[in-house]
Amino acid sequence: MGLVVQKYGGTSVGSIERIKAVAERVVRARDGGDRIVVVVSAMAGETNRLFHLASELSESPSARETDVLVATGEQVSAALLAIRLHSMGHPTVSFLAFQMNLTTDSNHGRARIKSVQCDRVMRSLDDGKIVVVAGFQGVNPDGDITTLGRGASDLTAVALAAALKADACEIYTDVDGVYTADPNICPKARKLGRISYEEMLEMAGLGAKVLQTRSVELARRYNVPLVVRSSFGEGEGTRVGQEDQSMEDVLVSGVTLDQNQSKITVAGVEDRPGLAARIFSPIADAGIVVDMIIQNASADGRTDMTFTIGREDLTRALEIVTRTAGEIGAFSVRHNDQVAKVSVVGVGMRTHSGVASTMFNVLAAERINIEMISTSEIKVSVVVNSKYGELAMRALHDAFINGDGGPHGTPRESV
Amino acid sequence: MGLVVQKYGGTSVGSIERIKAVAERVVRARDGGDRIVVVVSAMAGETNRLFHLASELSESPSARETDVLVATGEQVSAALLAIRLHSMGHPTVSFLAFQMNLTTDSNHGRARIKSVQCDRVMRSLDDGKIVVVAGFQGVNPDGDITTLGRGASDLTAVALAAALKADACEIYTDVDGVYTADPNICPKARKLGRISYEEMLEMAGLGAKVLQTRSVELARRYNVPLVVRSSFGEGEGTRVGQEDQSMEDVLVSGVTLDQNQSKITVAGVEDRPGLAARIFSPIADAGIVVDMIIQNASADGRTDMTFTIGREDLTRALEIVTRTAGEIGAFSVRHNDQVAKVSVVGVGMRTHSGVASTMFNVLAAERINIEMISTSEIKVSVVVNSKYGELAMRALHDAFINGDGGPHGTPRESV
Repeated sequence: MGLVVQKYGGTSVGSIERIKAVAERVVRARDGGDRIVVVVSAMAGETNRLFHLASELSESPSARETDVLVATGEQVSAALLAIRLHSMGHPTVSFLAFQMNLTTDSNHGRARIKSVQCDRVMRSLDDGKIVVVAGFQGVNPDGDITTLGRGASDLTAVALAAALKADACEIYTDVDGVYTADPNICPKARKLGRISYEEMLEMAGLGAKVLQTRSVELARRYNVPLVVRSSFGEGEGTRVGQEDQSMEDVLVSGVTLDQNQSKITVAGVEDRPGLAARIFSPIADAGIVVDMIIQNASADGRTDMTFTIGREDLTRALEIVTRTAGEIGAFSVRHNDQVAKVSVVGVGMRTHSGVASTMFNVLAAERINIEMISTSEIKVSVVVNSKYGELAMRALHDAFINGDGGPHGTPRESV
Repeated sequence: MGLVVQKYGGTSVGSIERIKAVAERVVRARDGGDRIVVVVSAMAGETNRLFHLASELSESPSARETDVLVATGEQVSAALLAIRLHSMGHPTVSFLAFQMNLTTDSNHGRARIKSVQCDRVMRSLDDGKIVVVAGFQGVNPDGDITTLGRGASDLTAVALAAALKADACEIYTDVDGVYTADPNICPKARKLGRISYEEMLEMAGLGAKVLQTRSVELARRYNVPLVVRSSFGEGEGTRVGQEDQSMEDVLVSGVTLDQNQSKITVAGVEDRPGLAARIFSPIADAGIVVDMIIQNASADGRTDMTFTIGREDLTRALEIVTRTAGEIGAFSVRHNDQVAKVSVVGVGMRTHSGVASTMFNVLAAERINIEMISTSEIKVSVVVNSKYGELAMRALHDAFINGDGGPHGTPRESV
């Protein structure tokens, strides 16, 4: 008899009918012999409704009180699902964060989990009960309600699975697994049967929105086996786990596209120590996340510094950088908000070479100019003009995933 | 500097605009120098909406989980009001039941408060903060969420006022005080400036719906000064407190009407010990509350036993009583669901006689037949045909309150 944590997102519990369907699925798993802990998000739209109410009362609502407010969304879902399971004859008990001492730091709205006490959950499971847990919420050491950030019910599920040493953590969502690329852009995209934590992390960070990055990190740290699966169908979904040999046989497991990029170039920066820090410290202080940074080779003692940021941060970043550029005597500041980042991801790159050059050849064949390049152990990213973003993605997918990408382009097991 | 607990009901926080108005009122009280604890109900309609969701998932929803569900209504109101007060520049902190150890028994849906720990509330007040508390909710000794019953945010407010030794507990509602009678029926009804706990208890129990009976009982036990006041106007409202000499100078402080009555007569009951218990025990076991009981003088060793119950219980009570009547050999069971109870209430009755006879004379003058009579120290109730209920109420109000009721009919101080 196994112990399984199932997590259902907002769409999966978005209506009375859908809650009934989730209950059916939970009961099937229970009847299969597993002990079940279910983590639920707020009903679709509810969290936004609550944020909207707060915004009508304050331009910048108190972070502590906003957490008290929005945490009710998950509490309602948990109670409703428990009520349904009860009425189907299955003893069920719901738990909120404070009832499990799911303790976090005090960063309201984006708190990090510190610990969770599962003894009461475990006792309920031992008593034969189904346990339903409100996701997304925690309590800080003072007992104040916190929330873990948007989409963080995944995190609640993984943390519980780790603490309970669950046999699996199943993430039920509105897609049926992790794809080699966004099927809306790449019609030939295929669902992956398996993917490593590391690949999933790169793909989550690069704009594939199936799993929240922090929950994948946590799953990797505690080696929690994840399954991403549709709550509307019966497919096997995608398993996310530790890297193994068969994964390394495949060069590229996915191609991602991030269209929400913009680029800033500080031209004619004196090539001497400390100037990079002068440029990037004020940006970091403003809470703006810089993604790629490229420094060209120096010419005449001057260099160009180019970096990318999310498009929503462009205006603020330009103000900051323009000020700094004046102070350090740089020649000019240029920017471009029409850029996209295209990446190929795969643990196979660790042991095989040639991915980057294949990538450049594929893009050259499509006459797509590469504006920036960045690489990691299991990823190559390029920045291109955003109007070529989807074309680049499809070409790279054709080349690496659909099998015409050279000797290592064998498609990975797909379901 | 005083400490005041203010309680706002569902209508008072029923919309964003009304929450803003409540915040203005709280801030005025705070600016007046008082330390303020605000207890809020769920936004009007929210509790019903949540109960309805539960009913769509189960015919008899789990009581524990229903409490988890409906407790969110007050949590939302508390957070929203705290957000508004914050945005007006007033440091504010909200507390839920679990954060104050507001402990109850485990009777979900109608739990009774056992204790509340106010040290954190007190610390927040000492720090200059406004405290907002979610009403209606508690936690049982296991940490499960409980609720105190419909309208029980009043109870939360009084319990906190008692624990904090508050100078006043102000109940803000949609009426501007306690009236000598229901103004919808008695156009001449007047707002009372003051009323004793005992009178308020009788009037609350008799169908005046301004204050919840249990909260008046609690206020009396801990001598918490109550004020009932409109959240929409600026009136002084009605103070509810300990009886004093001036109250005793007034014979009748209020006239109440309960139209939700029905009457059952068991005729020809043998007049021997134990038969009253045989009749009423099964009714009590069925959870039916019997109000008045009258046993006529015995004739030929047989007596008639008449009692009143709420109209919604008539069918069940008749089934039970008919069965018992057969067992004990009574002659017949009659019933009438067209009766009303009219009562006059006043602490002055304790020291003055003649109220009952004046009452009978007034009703006789209106040719209203009295079907049953019951008296207590500060109340006389009669049961009449329900079609005469309103007429009886107006006639008694004219006689006792509007001043033509004899030597003791002086109107009490009214505002």
